[in-house]
Amino acid sequence: MYHKNFKQKFLDVSHKNNSILCVGLDIDKDKMPKFLFETSKNPFLDFNKSIIDATKDIACAYKLNMAFYEVFGKEGFVLLKKTVEYIPKDIIVILDGKRNDIGNTARKYAQSLFEILKADAVTVNPYLGKDGVTPFLEYKDKCSFILCRTSNASAGDFQDLSVSTIPLYQIVAKRIKEWNKNDNSGAVVGATYPDELKIIRSILGDDIPLLIPGVGKQGGDVKDTVNNGTNVKGEMAIINSSRGIIHAGNNENFSEISRKKALSLRNEINKYR
Amino acid sequence: MYHKNFKQKFLDVSHKNNSILCVGLDIDKDKMPKFLFETSKNPFLDFNKSIIDATKDIACAYKLNMAFYEVFGKEGFVLLKKTVEYIPKDIIVILDGKRNDIGNTARKYAQSLFEILKADAVTVNPYLGKDGVTPFLEYKDKCSFILCRTSNASAGDFQDLSVSTIPLYQIVAKRIKEWNKNDNSGAVVGATYPDELKIIRSILGDDIPLLIPGVGKQGGDVKDTVNNGTNVKGEMAIINSSRGIIHAGNNENFSEISRKKALSLRNEINKYR
Repeated sequence: MYHKNFKQKFLDVSHKNNSILCVGLDIDKDKMPKFLFETSKNPFLDFNKSIIDATKDIACAYKLNMAFYEVFGKEGFVLLKKTVEYIPKDIIVILDGKRNDIGNTARKYAQSLFEILKADAVTVNPYLGKDGVTPFLEYKDKCSFILCRTSNASAGDFQDLSVSTIPLYQIVAKRIKEWNKNDNSGAVVGATYPDELKIIRSILGDDIPLLIPGVGKQGGDVKDTVNNGTNVKGEMAIINSSRGIIHAGNNENFSEISRKKALSLRNEINKYR
Repeated sequence: MYHKNFKQKFLDVSHKNNSILCVGLDIDKDKMPKFLFETSKNPFLDFNKSIIDATKDIACAYKLNMAFYEVFGKEGFVLLKKTVEYIPKDIIVILDGKRNDIGNTARKYAQSLFEILKADAVTVNPYLGKDGVTPFLEYKDKCSFILCRTSNASAGDFQDLSVSTIPLYQIVAKRIKEWNKNDNSGAVVGATYPDELKIIRSILGDDIPLLIPGVGKQGGDVKDTVNNGTNVKGEMAIINSSRGIIHAGNNENFSEISRKKALSLRNEINKYR
């Protein structure tokens, strides 16, 4: 079987679906349609399957934030695995666990995410420095999106601290570029910080992909995100929306509504590419 | 039932067992006694149980690094949960997952670790700033050890960067002190950096507990660790050793050997307290 690396797979699906939209499958029981808990034996898996079916020709990637699965315990692991297995093989699977640890331990996380759970890409926290990130980057056909500028309100607590006049997040961006020996580094940058997004894209150049959460409920502007986050070709960015798509509807037609939201966001993104 | 908070429980067990030693249950199949895979139906759980039985009067805490369990998939979750359940109720359970995310997601991690897996304490990565840490600190009876100075070789990549002449890890230490409104913050500081350990203890004062990995295989010096890491009473530090204890023996008597290693390290630690 011909084995594509991350970037080939990303560009192929992105062209096929004319999309750099990532749908975040961050399931929240309280926000799910109530009827599913009466009609389905596996309401969570059925919910995810419906959302996937409704968006698989619009999205380039699905992102599963592991916190939303771990909170279900053992069943959450099964749900995560079955959801990943259900995602069509040509679409990118991003497991968003923000994992980090010292080298020998980070290796276990990388093994778990890439080999057991079959992720195409993961998110990694950089605070431990190079040897905490290296075990992930050793998977040459996968992509590791390293947290650079996160989307939350307190992001600046440390990320904005000036190191010899340069803020920390820019130092992290420079390191991500240095660490890109296998051409498989990426960066997580929140859409809620468009100016920083622009600076990070200029530091990273045109070939390093960005994973961009924070449009939708978190308030990031789509136009700024696309203009500042994609490369010269309008590519190498993956723009994620979770709650704004998957929890838009509450009734039997929830997946149709999710599809409409995804389609509308995909098209809005494409308008600016 | 009278419900103790973290510090009460920690001080009680620490006095009872005359110990600030934490045994890290980071199981590694390749390093486990081979005979267990022939004689036991649940070799991993039986291994952990034997180590716990052999050290429960010597240790004040057990630390389970989640990477070593996640790598086993669904069974790893069950193993983690059953191991936690087997640990005597008066001993501290630290789940070392170094989790981090934006607020609403961090809340799921906190719920999963404290409510479902019943940890007394967890490790948390600070890179996302205050709102990523707050959901953990809201569990007033638990303790959140925030990564401050990690034990690995690349720790300094970011942690040593100077912010207005003060290195980042010291800024993180100052924040940990500020965030300690519920008297339940802690800090992770690697024994491999004794000078930094001393500085961090002086920033944090005498009341904030430190979780200190890095003695044993990683090479941290016990005397320096105790002198620099404990408070004036020789308390408020939890010194972890994983591989050096649990994987010291390979034969039928492995748990006796683990006990000897734990006893020897506990006593060496106490010599300097």
